[in-house]
Amino acid sequence: MTSVNIGGTAEPGVGVTQTKYYTGCEPPNQLRLEAGDKLGPITVAYETYGQLNKDKSNAILAVHAFTGDAHAAGIDPETKLPGWWEFMIGPGRAFDTNKYFVICQNNLGGCRGTTGPSSINPKTGKRYGLTFPMITLGDIVTVQRLLLDHLGIEKLLCVAGGSMAGMIALQWVASTPERVKSAIPISTVLKHSPQQIAFNEVGRQAIMSDPAWRKGDYYDHGQPERGLALARMIGHITYMSEESMETKFSRKQTKAEFLHKFTPDFEVESYLQYRGSNFVKRFDANSYLYLSKAMDNFDLAGNKLFPAGRPVTTRFLVLASASDWLYPSHQTLDIVKLLKERHADAVYCEIPSTYGHDAFLIKNEEQIRLVRSFLETTYNGR
Amino acid sequence: MTSVNIGGTAEPGVGVTQTKYYTGCEPPNQLRLEAGDKLGPITVAYETYGQLNKDKSNAILAVHAFTGDAHAAGIDPETKLPGWWEFMIGPGRAFDTNKYFVICQNNLGGCRGTTGPSSINPKTGKRYGLTFPMITLGDIVTVQRLLLDHLGIEKLLCVAGGSMAGMIALQWVASTPERVKSAIPISTVLKHSPQQIAFNEVGRQAIMSDPAWRKGDYYDHGQPERGLALARMIGHITYMSEESMETKFSRKQTKAEFLHKFTPDFEVESYLQYRGSNFVKRFDANSYLYLSKAMDNFDLAGNKLFPAGRPVTTRFLVLASASDWLYPSHQTLDIVKLLKERHADAVYCEIPSTYGHDAFLIKNEEQIRLVRSFLETTYNGR
Repeated sequence: MTSVNIGGTAEPGVGVTQTKYYTGCEPPNQLRLEAGDKLGPITVAYETYGQLNKDKSNAILAVHAFTGDAHAAGIDPETKLPGWWEFMIGPGRAFDTNKYFVICQNNLGGCRGTTGPSSINPKTGKRYGLTFPMITLGDIVTVQRLLLDHLGIEKLLCVAGGSMAGMIALQWVASTPERVKSAIPISTVLKHSPQQIAFNEVGRQAIMSDPAWRKGDYYDHGQPERGLALARMIGHITYMSEESMETKFSRKQTKAEFLHKFTPDFEVESYLQYRGSNFVKRFDANSYLYLSKAMDNFDLAGNKLFPAGRPVTTRFLVLASASDWLYPSHQTLDIVKLLKERHADAVYCEIPSTYGHDAFLIKNEEQIRLVRSFLETTYNGR
Repeated sequence: MTSVNIGGTAEPGVGVTQTKYYTGCEPPNQLRLEAGDKLGPITVAYETYGQLNKDKSNAILAVHAFTGDAHAAGIDPETKLPGWWEFMIGPGRAFDTNKYFVICQNNLGGCRGTTGPSSINPKTGKRYGLTFPMITLGDIVTVQRLLLDHLGIEKLLCVAGGSMAGMIALQWVASTPERVKSAIPISTVLKHSPQQIAFNEVGRQAIMSDPAWRKGDYYDHGQPERGLALARMIGHITYMSEESMETKFSRKQTKAEFLHKFTPDFEVESYLQYRGSNFVKRFDANSYLYLSKAMDNFDLAGNKLFPAGRPVTTRFLVLASASDWLYPSHQTLDIVKLLKERHADAVYCEIPSTYGHDAFLIKNEEQIRLVRSFLETTYNGR
């Protein structure tokens, strides 16, 4: 769920990329959200890599997780940072940009260019804050479809992503299966367990307990930095594994400056504080609330992924990380069971990574090979 | 690590109990703490159940976990609440008060009658706050020994406790093995892993990020309630298991009053908030900091539990909970390995509970039977 590319890659990627913007749903043609509210205009920030072929059959939607953005691959001209899935997307990589046209967009409700609670509400000239309507992962998919319509893409070769993005991939299949030839949901679930809701809720409470949150109306005063950093610290523990923390930190002492008795003693403490305070610079606290709530409310268990009687035509590659304890593989296997009960063309693999929930964001050959061959089969079998 | 007795018991227990107080270490005979600071006077709040026998060989020290208190059994005359280990202590129970003399005291650094950061510093007439010295689990044991000296008990039949109390039981063996005939460390570890430190650190940051914390000097203004409640919410998730949360809450919706868009939707959210706000009424935020830090700094790995060459005379019953993911059983097994390498008389059992880390606080027959027979063997073999 981190957007930082750990692991990286030495091969040349897609080079310098540029974030583009598309605005749709201008009034009066506003988008009707699942809960009934209307929203618009909606701006979508997106990047594309590779070329769309003539019959528009090679488009892959790479979806970012909770706090990610549209910059999935290549070098950002401003920050010089690589994309969050740099090792997966590029010439000759798993999502081979010599063959495929890869699209990544910032999700609705986010804060990295696409309309969200920190955007200006054109009706009032002020930022939405908590007047932003509640959104669902279904609404996020609807907005992703807007962009595909704009690009003239009728059917995706594949929709792929991990964590929240894996749920979004499943939501694509539930909402408009005729528009997805294949899906790669990674380290994800059909619905949040109470433990997953609990971790999200503690993050939300951390933000809302910060007096600087001001009931979401903080934009003239600055972010609720302490609460948001705290939410991130909690999240970060859940994204790592016991083993990866042991390898990275063990009980190493820190050299942090002594401020008072409870200044960090251990490296793991300083690291979490560092990650928390960095996060505040790039992510909006209200987006944290809206998106985490959309995840908690997501539920495709039972007949909701495939309505009864509807044939399943989408192919699936379902992946999990062996050391993921936030989204444990038994929950990912619940997806596979549902797929198999419906005779779906589905493959499941557990990646033997020690990196916990974040494993799909960290370069590993097994994930690369599995995705590459799955895409080849899907593309050649069109 | 909760002090509330879940599970309870229908049999009659030890009846109405009374917390007693002992004050020692009056100046100039102050206690020298492990870090070199001096502290005194020190008041100890404690309760006892059963009768000390003539040769004082039937004394058991029941140690409370992180946020517990001296009220381990019977009915508190004021609150009418049962003790935190009610199902374990009483006539005919595992710690049979017809046979044994059971002592429980509030730990040094706590806030339930024993000296801690919320106590008045007699030198200044003001509460210690952050002027309270850093303490270790070794210091907690030293203060426990003070009370035993006062009661004239030379050697404990047993020291027993779960979680932090299990570490304290191990610390007894490391510090003064000649004074403990047996030890029952439950759901505990030789040292905190970085993940365990990380969870504690997030709790501390939650407290210290609350402006109401005022660098620990909040006693004239009220507790940092939001931060402390948040710390407790995080802790509470780690004390339960995925399965026990699923059983208790699944995805049941709440009937909480709607205040804004992020008012709890799910029962698990309301429950955590309820537990957090209840906790604030009974526990001091600075005690949270001092005691969690003492746990993080605890480390009896390697030769520290048994210095090389010293024969191991203490008997051990080591217990773990199968569903404990905060203190996973592989870490508890590290204790057993160390014991076996030193030819200690030690038994290990994993209790097949689904209650996670809190399992030792919830009535279960297996723990009762194992503790009862272990104590009988130890007592009869004196």
